[in-house]
Amino acid sequence: MNRKWWGWGDPDRHDEIESHPELFEFLKKQLALPEGAHYPLVEATHVKLPEGQLSSEFLAALGRACGGGSVSTEPLLRLTHSAGMGYRDLLRLRRGALPDCVDAVVRPSSEDEVKSVIALCETASVQVIPYGGGSSVVGSFDVVRKEGQGVISLDIGLMNRMISLDVGSLVATFQAGISGPDLESQLGSKGLTLGHFPQSFEYSTLGGWIATRGAGSSSNIYGKIEDMVISLHVATPMGIVESLAVPKSAAGPDLRQLFLGSEGTLGVVTQASVAVHVAPASRRFSSYLFRSFEEGTSCVRELLQRGLHNSTLRLSDRNETTSFYHSRGETVALSSKMKEAVGLWLVSRKGLSFEGGSLLIAISEGHPDQVSADVRELKAACGAHHGFSLGASPAEAWLKSRFDQPYLRDSLIDHGIMVDTLETATIWSNVLRLHDAVTSAISAELGKRGRSALVMCHLSHTYLTGSSLYFTYMAAQEPGNELEQWMAAKEAASRAIVSNGGTITHHHGVGSDHSKWMINEDGELGLDALAALKLALDPKGIMNPGKLLPPMEAKSG
Amino acid sequence: MNRKWWGWGDPDRHDEIESHPELFEFLKKQLALPEGAHYPLVEATHVKLPEGQLSSEFLAALGRACGGGSVSTEPLLRLTHSAGMGYRDLLRLRRGALPDCVDAVVRPSSEDEVKSVIALCETASVQVIPYGGGSSVVGSFDVVRKEGQGVISLDIGLMNRMISLDVGSLVATFQAGISGPDLESQLGSKGLTLGHFPQSFEYSTLGGWIATRGAGSSSNIYGKIEDMVISLHVATPMGIVESLAVPKSAAGPDLRQLFLGSEGTLGVVTQASVAVHVAPASRRFSSYLFRSFEEGTSCVRELLQRGLHNSTLRLSDRNETTSFYHSRGETVALSSKMKEAVGLWLVSRKGLSFEGGSLLIAISEGHPDQVSADVRELKAACGAHHGFSLGASPAEAWLKSRFDQPYLRDSLIDHGIMVDTLETATIWSNVLRLHDAVTSAISAELGKRGRSALVMCHLSHTYLTGSSLYFTYMAAQEPGNELEQWMAAKEAASRAIVSNGGTITHHHGVGSDHSKWMINEDGELGLDALAALKLALDPKGIMNPGKLLPPMEAKSG
Repeated sequence: MNRKWWGWGDPDRHDEIESHPELFEFLKKQLALPEGAHYPLVEATHVKLPEGQLSSEFLAALGRACGGGSVSTEPLLRLTHSAGMGYRDLLRLRRGALPDCVDAVVRPSSEDEVKSVIALCETASVQVIPYGGGSSVVGSFDVVRKEGQGVISLDIGLMNRMISLDVGSLVATFQAGISGPDLESQLGSKGLTLGHFPQSFEYSTLGGWIATRGAGSSSNIYGKIEDMVISLHVATPMGIVESLAVPKSAAGPDLRQLFLGSEGTLGVVTQASVAVHVAPASRRFSSYLFRSFEEGTSCVRELLQRGLHNSTLRLSDRNETTSFYHSRGETVALSSKMKEAVGLWLVSRKGLSFEGGSLLIAISEGHPDQVSADVRELKAACGAHHGFSLGASPAEAWLKSRFDQPYLRDSLIDHGIMVDTLETATIWSNVLRLHDAVTSAISAELGKRGRSALVMCHLSHTYLTGSSLYFTYMAAQEPGNELEQWMAAKEAASRAIVSNGGTITHHHGVGSDHSKWMINEDGELGLDALAALKLALDPKGIMNPGKLLPPMEAKSG
Repeated sequence: MNRKWWGWGDPDRHDEIESHPELFEFLKKQLALPEGAHYPLVEATHVKLPEGQLSSEFLAALGRACGGGSVSTEPLLRLTHSAGMGYRDLLRLRRGALPDCVDAVVRPSSEDEVKSVIALCETASVQVIPYGGGSSVVGSFDVVRKEGQGVISLDIGLMNRMISLDVGSLVATFQAGISGPDLESQLGSKGLTLGHFPQSFEYSTLGGWIATRGAGSSSNIYGKIEDMVISLHVATPMGIVESLAVPKSAAGPDLRQLFLGSEGTLGVVTQASVAVHVAPASRRFSSYLFRSFEEGTSCVRELLQRGLHNSTLRLSDRNETTSFYHSRGETVALSSKMKEAVGLWLVSRKGLSFEGGSLLIAISEGHPDQVSADVRELKAACGAHHGFSLGASPAEAWLKSRFDQPYLRDSLIDHGIMVDTLETATIWSNVLRLHDAVTSAISAELGKRGRSALVMCHLSHTYLTGSSLYFTYMAAQEPGNELEQWMAAKEAASRAIVSNGGTITHHHGVGSDHSKWMINEDGELGLDALAALKLALDPKGIMNPGKLLPPMEAKSG
């Protein structure tokens, strides 16, 4: 894959904020962005890396161990494999300097090669940081090295084949390094889909989804990745763990669940069998504007609890709705003229407006009869909550551009804007409280530091008992203190989440960013149990150290 | 709860085989049952128990630790708490003699009391066997004592309160000892349901369902218990583990999943929050007869893969269909006259008959519109697979009598019939192979021992990717060798399951009966991981020893 080394995705694809003039003006005003604000980007040739710590003998042994693959110490490859795509990563990459860096990038071509590589590293006490698509936004690739210890990135990207497809059972088995587009294209050619479409879809892998318990935008009907995995293979320093490929079992604790979300700290997922679906025959788009996020939330909750499962149901709060209104006019959502007309009409007749309103985007998919029934029910429920239909176009616009956001983020950083996302989940009765707490915490922290924040949120992955909350926040950067500024905002948000009944992450994962909050998820004894598991499978602690589990001091402190 | 000490359920409720004369004749013929065959039952006063091993000081300390509850050494209570409801248990109970027996039955009234009791046992190295409703059929209550070590049964039955109900979030929190009927009645009074209806419903508990990863007959829409649990508390020898109450999370491996299916080997589930549903407004019953189990299986698979989720979808194989035909005539399913008429009509017009056919029972429930759509789709799919509609009555009859089967089993044992059930699950493409393998293995083994077996099967819990298979098998007992006969059949069935791609259990659990097959589920390394988990939470190994994990010799052998 040809990838930008300092930012998101395809180096030839761009989404500049200048091409969204109305949104840019809106943001400048909201964020009080100083004229000419700018965050620099070094030339690739100026990238500074520490010396590699691996001997040429060990590198040669690695090369022999993965004869079908490759071993590289090429600087840009080492750099990109030592950072993810979080805001902190992007700042560091643009400066061409990371606190530390992997010594080599190892790309095995088979499970056997993975096994051999891990065995070599286990013997030599070399750290292994598994790498799928590199899209982590929670510090999953940070190098946390003990003095003198070698560190490799184990990139599973060459392991990208479909191993088998059982159409009758709707079970597909893939090597774990297959990317989202490759996986969907292989299934699509048989009229099937997995239905897992995270925002990172184009640059993430099946193995990464599993390691982080990922969720895609159609999770309402297809589930999160943990609901899709029938069985998996994990290569650990103690050998390969294989679970049995059955739909459900009561044979003890679910072995798969030990590895779903284990983030490479126990081993590397090498292959997985997943439940796939017949591709939907029909798809319908709907959009509604509610008078408030509260009313929209009530409506979405009711829909879920009445058993309606749209593939996508995405409710934006006031700030995100306003921002969407300003960003989509020049694309396909609403023509300027229509915007004027609708806007005036809304204000005069319904007391509704985009500023202050709450936008719901819904996609119904499946059998035509089911879809028609869903659309009817959606309409009735939205009507009962004073939702005003905006037709199909906002939902179509969202679907069309859903993988573009990270490109726009690169452009925003260019223009001196801090922009990051974070997410959580809670039960319905706590959604509004958590929403307000996180929004206020970020705004207050950034305000204290002299910046006007824009904090936006949507409910996307929704359940019978609750919902995820996905936050995007922005502020003008503090030049020279960009990292500290971000850390302060992140800390404030995380604290607000854990003290208001949220989980520290719904689908981004833990990495190093969230590990200190794991005590709030699992308690001391729960973490002891996970630590015992790690010790059994990775006794020397070579697998992705410093991620997921908090450092011992932090836990007991 | 007033309970029969030697068999299932309410001592005043019976279902004698004599009241099903047609079925009795059918079974006598099928099994070549000797005239006057009979299995005895000792008087309660003849029950022989070993001396208790606990000192009066320790018993007094237990009494103080659970001041709100009780501690008893009453013989019949010790007996019933040392056996479940498997065929092996029933043979032993009827003889009034178990290989070993718990020394006391401790009934705490709160989580704090559970904690204190476990702390006392941890200090004194006394074994703790958690006990919910006592309905295990896999040897979960077997006493596996080290010479001289004390053993208590920790019965959570007094912990039967609803702790809280969040109607807006559809989350209910209960103490783990609440029984099925009490739980559903509390929810029902608010128009809600959990939707978990295992055959043991009337005599099983929320904690037991969780400990064994149970499934109810409506699992197709409500899921298995592992899909319902939002959070739980588990009292372990190292303290209480509490998971966070959120609908979904990506914060590391799912802590709940370590305890779902842990069968009391890590600790005792003391409370849990579960997702509940608005009770269905509408319910419709359907029944279809297919020409063969193969055709019925294809139809059920198609329905599932097209997204239809009836609450119950239960497809019987040829033997079970025949048996159903003979058993239900005298109840409500089909009047004798109607049976004659339908039978003749089927044979003459459709080439169909109950002998050789495959009966599908379907219950659709939910919103009236959804139910109508489901029923239409069911009809179309069954028609396409040459299924002949038998109307509502067979499905209604099944629902009405679904909790009666274990009463009938007691009567069958009275009459010298070995009767047991076992279950597995596999992916669709393997269902028929596994069905045939298990059926043949049991028949062949019992045949070798000189008995004609009746092996019946149904698919009940069905998934996108596969199905459970539930077997009931019967044979005339081998007088004097009843236990050996059962062990031979069970061994043959288990071997057939694991060598044909099935899981050793879909919802009964592992207990001591299945522990030696766990190596086939999780492999050596997977079991090492589970053993490490146990060691972290139960370092002295006092929690339900000998269950779930295979003995070390067996694993390495």
